[in-house]
Amino acid sequence: MQAWTDLREQGLDTGKKARLHRILYQFGLRNGTALFLPYDQGLEHGPRDFFANQAAGDPAYIARLALEGGFNGIAIQIGLAEKFYWDYAGEVPLILKLNGKTDIPPDESALSPVHATVADAVRLGADAVGYTLYVGTPAAEADFAQYRRVREDAARFGMPLVVWAYPRGSAIGAKGGKDSFYAVDYAARTASELGADVVKVNFPHPEKRAGVPAAYDTEFTAQQAIDAVVRSANRTLLLVSGGEQQGDEAMLEKARRSMEAGATGLIFGRNVWQRGHDESLAFIARLREILAKYPHERALASR
Amino acid sequence: MQAWTDLREQGLDTGKKARLHRILYQFGLRNGTALFLPYDQGLEHGPRDFFANQAAGDPAYIARLALEGGFNGIAIQIGLAEKFYWDYAGEVPLILKLNGKTDIPPDESALSPVHATVADAVRLGADAVGYTLYVGTPAAEADFAQYRRVREDAARFGMPLVVWAYPRGSAIGAKGGKDSFYAVDYAARTASELGADVVKVNFPHPEKRAGVPAAYDTEFTAQQAIDAVVRSANRTLLLVSGGEQQGDEAMLEKARRSMEAGATGLIFGRNVWQRGHDESLAFIARLREILAKYPHERALASR
Amino acid sequence: MQAWTDLREQGLDTGKKARLHRILYQFGLRNGTALFLPYDQGLEHGPRDFFANQAAGDPAYIARLALEGGFNGIAIQIGLAEKFYWDYAGEVPLILKLNGKTDIPPDESALSPVHATVADAVRLGADAVGYTLYVGTPAAEADFAQYRRVREDAARFGMPLVVWAYPRGSAIGAKGGKDSFYAVDYAARTASELGADVVKVNFPHPEKRAGVPAAYDTEFTAQQAIDAVVRSANRTLLLVSGGEQQGDEAMLEKARRSMEAGATGLIFGRNVWQRGHDESLAFIARLREILAKYPHERALASR
Amino acid sequence: MQAWTDLREQGLDTGKKARLHRILYQFGLRNGTALFLPYDQGLEHGPRDFFANQAAGDPAYIARLALEGGFNGIAIQIGLAEKFYWDYAGEVPLILKLNGKTDIPPDESALSPVHATVADAVRLGADAVGYTLYVGTPAAEADFAQYRRVREDAARFGMPLVVWAYPRGSAIGAKGGKDSFYAVDYAARTASELGADVVKVNFPHPEKRAGVPAAYDTEFTAQQAIDAVVRSANRTLLLVSGGEQQGDEAMLEKARRSMEAGATGLIFGRNVWQRGHDESLAFIARLREILAKYPHERALASR
Amino acid sequence: MQAWTDLREQGLDTGKKARLHRILYQFGLRNGTALFLPYDQGLEHGPRDFFANQAAGDPAYIARLALEGGFNGIAIQIGLAEKFYWDYAGEVPLILKLNGKTDIPPDESALSPVHATVADAVRLGADAVGYTLYVGTPAAEADFAQYRRVREDAARFGMPLVVWAYPRGSAIGAKGGKDSFYAVDYAARTASELGADVVKVNFPHPEKRAGVPAAYDTEFTAQQAIDAVVRSANRTLLLVSGGEQQGDEAMLEKARRSMEAGATGLIFGRNVWQRGHDESLAFIARLREILAKYPHERALASR
Repeated sequence: MQAWTDLREQGLDTGKKARLHRILYQFGLRNGTALFLPYDQGLEHGPRDFFANQAAGDPAYIARLALEGGFNGIAIQIGLAEKFYWDYAGEVPLILKLNGKTDIPPDESALSPVHATVADAVRLGADAVGYTLYVGTPAAEADFAQYRRVREDAARFGMPLVVWAYPRGSAIGAKGGKDSFYAVDYAARTASELGADVVKVNFPHPEKRAGVPAAYDTEFTAQQAIDAVVRSANRTLLLVSGGEQQGDEAMLEKARRSMEAGATGLIFGRNVWQRGHDESLAFIARLREILAKYPHERALASR
Repeated sequence: MQAWTDLREQGLDTGKKARLHRILYQFGLRNGTALFLPYDQGLEHGPRDFFANQAAGDPAYIARLALEGGFNGIAIQIGLAEKFYWDYAGEVPLILKLNGKTDIPPDESALSPVHATVADAVRLGADAVGYTLYVGTPAAEADFAQYRRVREDAARFGMPLVVWAYPRGSAIGAKGGKDSFYAVDYAARTASELGADVVKVNFPHPEKRAGVPAAYDTEFTAQQAIDAVVRSANRTLLLVSGGEQQGDEAMLEKARRSMEAGATGLIFGRNVWQRGHDESLAFIARLREILAKYPHERALASR
Repeated sequence: MQAWTDLREQGLDTGKKARLHRILYQFGLRNGTALFLPYDQGLEHGPRDFFANQAAGDPAYIARLALEGGFNGIAIQIGLAEKFYWDYAGEVPLILKLNGKTDIPPDESALSPVHATVADAVRLGADAVGYTLYVGTPAAEADFAQYRRVREDAARFGMPLVVWAYPRGSAIGAKGGKDSFYAVDYAARTASELGADVVKVNFPHPEKRAGVPAAYDTEFTAQQAIDAVVRSANRTLLLVSGGEQQGDEAMLEKARRSMEAGATGLIFGRNVWQRGHDESLAFIARLREILAKYPHERALASR
Repeated sequence: MQAWTDLREQGLDTGKKARLHRILYQFGLRNGTALFLPYDQGLEHGPRDFFANQAAGDPAYIARLALEGGFNGIAIQIGLAEKFYWDYAGEVPLILKLNGKTDIPPDESALSPVHATVADAVRLGADAVGYTLYVGTPAAEADFAQYRRVREDAARFGMPLVVWAYPRGSAIGAKGGKDSFYAVDYAARTASELGADVVKVNFPHPEKRAGVPAAYDTEFTAQQAIDAVVRSANRTLLLVSGGEQQGDEAMLEKARRSMEAGATGLIFGRNVWQRGHDESLAFIARLREILAKYPHERALASR
Repeated sequence: MQAWTDLREQGLDTGKKARLHRILYQFGLRNGTALFLPYDQGLEHGPRDFFANQAAGDPAYIARLALEGGFNGIAIQIGLAEKFYWDYAGEVPLILKLNGKTDIPPDESALSPVHATVADAVRLGADAVGYTLYVGTPAAEADFAQYRRVREDAARFGMPLVVWAYPRGSAIGAKGGKDSFYAVDYAARTASELGADVVKVNFPHPEKRAGVPAAYDTEFTAQQAIDAVVRSANRTLLLVSGGEQQGDEAMLEKARRSMEAGATGLIFGRNVWQRGHDESLAFIARLREILAKYPHERALASR
């Protein structure tokens, strides 16, 4: 297990440290771990994701769920932030997602275009911004160019930058696929090299070995894989995303292994809200139980 | 008594509401009232203010006092914010004071020049900015010009604007002086008319009547005066400042009357830290007792 | 005695820390103390300052003296930096002075206009910039406005900001004068409140009490005064300037007291170069002996 | 052997000369030669490069190795610089790498997209910036366009520009390959023609002659080849990179020949840190022995 | 006598060196000295200056005189440059004067407002720009601000900056007057401190001692005075201006002493053209005889 890093040893400037402190120690379990509710699927996949639980198509329902469930933040696009966040402003941290795309065109040259700015996030009182970086895409030139502006603005405004680091593009398929250990490990490291404060990755699959570089073409346990991914992220805080809904026990196992590896937390959307309200809260409670076992004590200045 | 205003009925945009919510409901008594620690006297009066308690000259001592005392925020200048706030970032809200001056030149044409920006406040993770407006100064043209830029930036960044509304300048002396009911009432209203989200005033003295307009030249109780001042501020939240150190009972009486009038809270500096550490905490405890009696219940979105 | 502060506990961002580290630990005695050679008198007083030692009118002579004497830096204006620093670039740190004035007009509303930028300093490979702030001047509005831009640029470029904090203007004369304990103490604190990384002050004179506020109108020893001034500067590193040439023993006594109080170092110009070359080096050697007695050990990251 | 060029005869402006002087004469052997530690492989190849020595995946380990080994600088990407360099700021020079890419997509139209700026380098206190130019790539239009902006900014800020000059792209394979004498010689000259202050090349292989132009299709010794490459770089200082780990004796031979040819130094990464800590230091010691035999005496301004 | 400085030792970047080389070695006597024809009196004094020789009111006449007389350059305002320089473009160097004023208002707060830019000078093919700096004026804040922009642009475009350094303003009269040794010496130094490449001063009058600082209140010969002024300018090339027409022998004596002191040349207007055409040429011939005696041999790169 990789030891988690105290916020004080993270290389953060004042504004980023203030905002991350708020997220990690003034919300959720207030123990330095985090549970985020991502809600950008309406753009990324379309309303089909809400067919399993029609109520979840209503952003107000999701915001209330985040409050009831004691989340550390919700991640939404600018439109929902402008229309819905006012009601809950300050009651739950906002992560404003700055880019996004539909899944209508194919993914070979995946690029997630920017449609909002860090200044928008500041104006809305957000505590972080989110950016999807497609690691390995042939469109890296455009991706890096828009990412650079986001990173610079985030630095200028002291706004934590959460990178959705997703292996994607035509070359990834032939190298183990987008959730292979190789691809996820590379993605975590890339986000760290490029300046993410927090990185969101999928749980790595070491058994996906077809076409991966030699170093990854050997036996690794799931725990070894997630341990390595957390190390690759080094001082960039790591969140594990849930992805598509899967069996609860499998999800909880992922969550446990991730926290054991030193991750900061989880960012689970569909697994949470693609079910009825009370079931959602019950599942959240089980996730919180896990997080409670891995407190990240802070070194308080006031001591 | 003026009913306090719920944040939801304040005409605030999302960012200002998020940040004020944090200050009022996630710090201090978490009941919508506020106790602030102002610490700009090193610039405004010079180090002589620290002679009564040498430890208070150290900004780190003050920051720790704010944490120990459970304050809703500290108000400091850019230099101290940059050098000291990192240690406490996010643990106590920061109100970045954007202008200030020494008391070396005379006050006839008082103007408090701007030396920091709302962008600085954003960068440092502040939850509000402070601006000293000298109500009645012959230098109002320059004052309003720089104020306008601050107000515009505060609106653009969703940053609450706290106005130190101080009657000042050669004409004020002849009209009751700077803490007459007349002058304080006018100052509160001026801040409200010009767009302050929060206004900081001195406690009004209705007995100072020499030269005041006829309307104020009659008997008012202290309670009537502070009631009127809170009404004049209308939707601008009102803070009463402590000013020079005075007897504790007098200060507590001011605090009680202010809260009774519907003020949001108190901003007490020298009365707090111009004494030993334990005495400071004891006095703070008495102030908190008062605030606890005037909770401002919020209308939660989640209900 | 105030304990000096390690660079790591100074609230510095990466660039400022890198550049201050260079100045303090890679030049001079490499022990965290500093001896600077200021050479802006040609502008501030005119060539008359060079009549005592004609060679000193030649900037190349001064640069060589800085190298021979093992100084931690030279502080010069843009013209001399552009024409002379190339020859010595990187061999001794450059502090580019960004404002300055002649002493031809009277000082009542003293203002030192800016004629160079932090970007100039970056371009010339400087390790710090210098700004003269006239504390107490009636021209504070213009002073603060140009200072703010310098401070912002210095933050943006990670360039340490050295403030020449000089009490000046018509009101200072009546309050103890420009080198009274009161005035110097206030100036040190003002620089700290406004965000200086390093402050340069004159040695305080506690015996100059005519017209000073009550707190200063009592007996203080010279040591008590300089101790207080270092405290007022808190995390802003303090340099004591030499001013006009005086007896060597008096200057060395000032130097000793300053270092005893926790100052970072000395910035002596006329006392150094208004004498022959070998005498200059002999005097410098005596200053270095004093600095060697007050090492500021750094907490090395590499340990 | 090509005579090395004194910094004073290099056509450098003040800022670039100051910063190169620091790198070459205040770090490492302080004799004008250089040993750099490149650490961008986490982005360029992914975490697999750290499998041979897991400790090397931690940027803090690498920074400490650079200090212990007496390197003249470390070359890293913005993310690691922001999160890790603060701890070592000023203790070892920083070369901020401004572009980079993953090796996931194929290399036929290789382009290394920019994700950081010279302004970032200034802000972080870097002493140089690094740019990867893919000489011969079909994507040269985009490459030159982003290079031009970097070069202009480097000139404007007085920041030395180190060009990673790498032959790459579909046409290179058919002309001797990316480390043929022909390709490396052309790359060195291209960097010099386009304005690099320092160029990093692979050691040239004169025996790779398949498809090279006639002039290169003849017998050259390794020494003749590296001599020619250094001449092609003319006033652009030349660094030889290590590339993949190879036998130590082969690497040391390369190093010796390079210094004999007049190179300024070496930039060895994987050969250094893909082994245990003590072995790394032992290998570094052997590299330093070689550099010590080729001092580049400087013409001091102070003489 | 101060040794003149070779252009190669002047701290000049490439563009400034190229343009100054043209002026000094490809025009006039081609020996590194310079004779300039200033023609801004139509703005500075009005047409009255042309009453002595009506032809001189025609800029074309002046331009032809500059060609016939073998001048190194003419200094004119934008209007004349745009309307007349086309005819002679490239045949004689152009110094575009960027600021100027009428002599209608009083001089107490003298400021010479900018009405053209360095970009205009580039567009017109000028080889230098001229700026009038009023040393000692109470309007120094505005003067320095506009000067800074000119200096920055001149650096950016590689355009030599010639500063007309004129003591002026209410305080100068009481300190020896505007052409006292004290005032001229201070002005030369100020131009040098602020970054002039060339400075134009009046010949100093050591006998004007009323009110000057003690250092200047003693006997100096004219030669001692001009020697000191050239020293004060250090690496800034010095031109002595003619001022109002005086007896020819007095002017020639000034010229001789200036060159003896190490000045680069002369800038004589009214003394040249306030007489008939042939007389002008005869006087010019005598000036050239003097310059020929003080060649400034260059160190040629090509040797």
